[in-house]
Amino acid sequence: MTKCDVLVVGAGILGLSAAYHIKNKNPKLNVLVVDKLGAAGQGSTAKSAAAFRCLFYSRTNFALADSSVEFYKYAQNDLGYDLKLRWAGYLWLFDDNGYKKMLPVLKDLANKGFEYKEYDGSDLAKKLDMQTDFTGDEEAQMMGLGNVYKGILIPKAGFIDVDSLVKFYESEFLKLGGKIQYNTEVTELIVEPRQPLGMPGEPYFWQDAIVTGAKTNKGLIRAEKTIVAAGAWSPLLLDQLGIDCFIKAKKRQVFSVKANTEALRKLLFTNEFTNAGCLPFTIFPKPSAYIRPNPEEGAFWLAYADEFPRAFKIEDNPEPEENYYQYGLYQVTVKYFPQFSGCQPFSAFAGLYEINTIDGQPLVFEENGVMVVGGASGSGIMKADAIGRIVAALYSGEEYALLYDDRKFKVSDLGLKHRNVELEKLVI
Amino acid sequence: MTKCDVLVVGAGILGLSAAYHIKNKNPKLNVLVVDKLGAAGQGSTAKSAAAFRCLFYSRTNFALADSSVEFYKYAQNDLGYDLKLRWAGYLWLFDDNGYKKMLPVLKDLANKGFEYKEYDGSDLAKKLDMQTDFTGDEEAQMMGLGNVYKGILIPKAGFIDVDSLVKFYESEFLKLGGKIQYNTEVTELIVEPRQPLGMPGEPYFWQDAIVTGAKTNKGLIRAEKTIVAAGAWSPLLLDQLGIDCFIKAKKRQVFSVKANTEALRKLLFTNEFTNAGCLPFTIFPKPSAYIRPNPEEGAFWLAYADEFPRAFKIEDNPEPEENYYQYGLYQVTVKYFPQFSGCQPFSAFAGLYEINTIDGQPLVFEENGVMVVGGASGSGIMKADAIGRIVAALYSGEEYALLYDDRKFKVSDLGLKHRNVELEKLVI
Repeated sequence: MTKCDVLVVGAGILGLSAAYHIKNKNPKLNVLVVDKLGAAGQGSTAKSAAAFRCLFYSRTNFALADSSVEFYKYAQNDLGYDLKLRWAGYLWLFDDNGYKKMLPVLKDLANKGFEYKEYDGSDLAKKLDMQTDFTGDEEAQMMGLGNVYKGILIPKAGFIDVDSLVKFYESEFLKLGGKIQYNTEVTELIVEPRQPLGMPGEPYFWQDAIVTGAKTNKGLIRAEKTIVAAGAWSPLLLDQLGIDCFIKAKKRQVFSVKANTEALRKLLFTNEFTNAGCLPFTIFPKPSAYIRPNPEEGAFWLAYADEFPRAFKIEDNPEPEENYYQYGLYQVTVKYFPQFSGCQPFSAFAGLYEINTIDGQPLVFEENGVMVVGGASGSGIMKADAIGRIVAALYSGEEYALLYDDRKFKVSDLGLKHRNVELEKLVI
Repeated sequence: MTKCDVLVVGAGILGLSAAYHIKNKNPKLNVLVVDKLGAAGQGSTAKSAAAFRCLFYSRTNFALADSSVEFYKYAQNDLGYDLKLRWAGYLWLFDDNGYKKMLPVLKDLANKGFEYKEYDGSDLAKKLDMQTDFTGDEEAQMMGLGNVYKGILIPKAGFIDVDSLVKFYESEFLKLGGKIQYNTEVTELIVEPRQPLGMPGEPYFWQDAIVTGAKTNKGLIRAEKTIVAAGAWSPLLLDQLGIDCFIKAKKRQVFSVKANTEALRKLLFTNEFTNAGCLPFTIFPKPSAYIRPNPEEGAFWLAYADEFPRAFKIEDNPEPEENYYQYGLYQVTVKYFPQFSGCQPFSAFAGLYEINTIDGQPLVFEENGVMVVGGASGSGIMKADAIGRIVAALYSGEEYALLYDDRKFKVSDLGLKHRNVELEKLVI
């Protein structure tokens, strides 16, 4: 039997950030991270499109993302970890309706001093050799594609190397004396009465009971505090105890297409928007499929976060679907960017969003002695540092977490009972 | 292939009430109810403790329960259905802390004109030959049992015969020309594009798609509108489409103990509180286990809605657990009522609460062409009529449902987007 002060279930980006920040605040604590996979960040973390933006409408999202990205910048510039931050920006394309809806939000953001830049459709057509007007294109009409009326460039946004970020937290955590056990799968959480009677079948319902550790394939782990950070798999552990974490899993697929023609290379390495040397993360108007450039690979990642009727489903090895590219992403992308004509993906991967179905924002709460962190709904990478600090503050019983750059964040805002997250109006 | 205008999945009390009210409002519609079981109300409905109360703090709960019970009264008195309504009342026992917390709520209710009666612990001890003070009882202390400081009797409350209520809705629905198919299990909902292209693998993500019926073990059913009322099983159908209904299943167990001694018969058939000829539905202070008298059977039903660490689990045949009685219900009950000393259950049953984990109140909403009703969280029987009317109003696109007695209820209040339910402060 292993004993520890804090057991973190899951070495994804949220589990690692939480473990690191707890250990950092409490150097003497015995903090143990376990993961069923063989290395850090090999679950959904590894399947991320690994883009970030520091422009959100809601105070919650902005604080979480901006402070995290500032910390990543610091880790890269001052701590010497090459996280391959690339400030390529986000280029958000809107049809006239979408733009009309977004206008008050954008004005509001401009008034608050946020930076962004606006482009006309015709301008974008020229800069990117793209199709912005589908008048007369029956096929595009049938597909319901939106014209490109305007484009909004968010400069404080871009890409990060997830693997390097994971390694950063892992090695800093280990340096502080933290422990990690891989290939260790938690099968259930242990519940015991606070005042055990030594009778069979405890706890009885009239006993006050709490989580005191976990059963794993490598034996029992007893912990003063257990933190579930198992991503899309968290409900499998928490449902067993009747704790609802409001997390559902949804498959997300990314298809990688090589820039193997002159026209595609021109698009990939365009300098029209930023000085990052590549196309921004580019979101189509409707449906909001996106292109995530991967200049290191000389490739584009094509993806779309499909909703109805995509199932909620927890799967260990989600597979990308050929038809999703052929009849979906390819058809949409080639309409906007004829340069992609005939392109086949040279690789593809699929992961799971762990979606918080209440409001799509992260959850950090404690119930019956177990802490839960998750539900970042596809933006866990860009918010991971702040979330880890909030978990550490909750662990320490603090009302406010101090985010990087000394911003204060009320811990209970991400909880269940006194949850207080602002509605996000800038949703992809 | 079967075709219908409205397909209701589930012939539990909510499905039947919804089907009846839709058919009643729209006599020409072809309304079909299917259920995987062989008769009406054989799932969780049959496993209900079948108690009702018309005293709630929240406007939402009060409107739903009171109007439903008024309708049941009407069905019994004026429509000639013997629903075996028995106005035995609820007797709610409080320890001093619980009472202190409840006092402002009760005062508020009294000011609003609600009727209830207050009893002192000593008075109850005499009337019921019960133990109300555990001072000096180490075992009771260890179990954390609450003393009985006060008892609140809610007179507009009691029991109903669930089977008769189910038969009422079933036969009235059939009389109107509604159809029911039993032994028909829906395995999945069908989703189709609004504008089909006749291509393989539709719908693609750029297509607008809706639910157009269901696949069952008896073949395809096409419906203009599908309503999922499958109780604890609803998430199995809705998760497949990525629709979150926020419903989780929790086992609930009831143990039936015969009143086979003079002392127990005296308790069961007491006339101290109402003229219903039996003990009220009696709730202990802490833990809030309860006694639901069943005078027809000459028995008491003992039960407790246990929370942590009771799992969320969907099971077709939940089993009552011997230990739950022996180490749980029996131990608690016999402390308050020594009359139960040595009593063994002569029968027991278990069902599933379909818990709405957001706020414990019912859900009625439509998403992507599928309507969902459920989440009544253990009070589906007492609210079924109102909920059925609200479903019918949503089906007809009406902003308000007219409940029995002409109360108006805003349909979207039970929805997801503009949900507006008052917090309940009188929770068992």
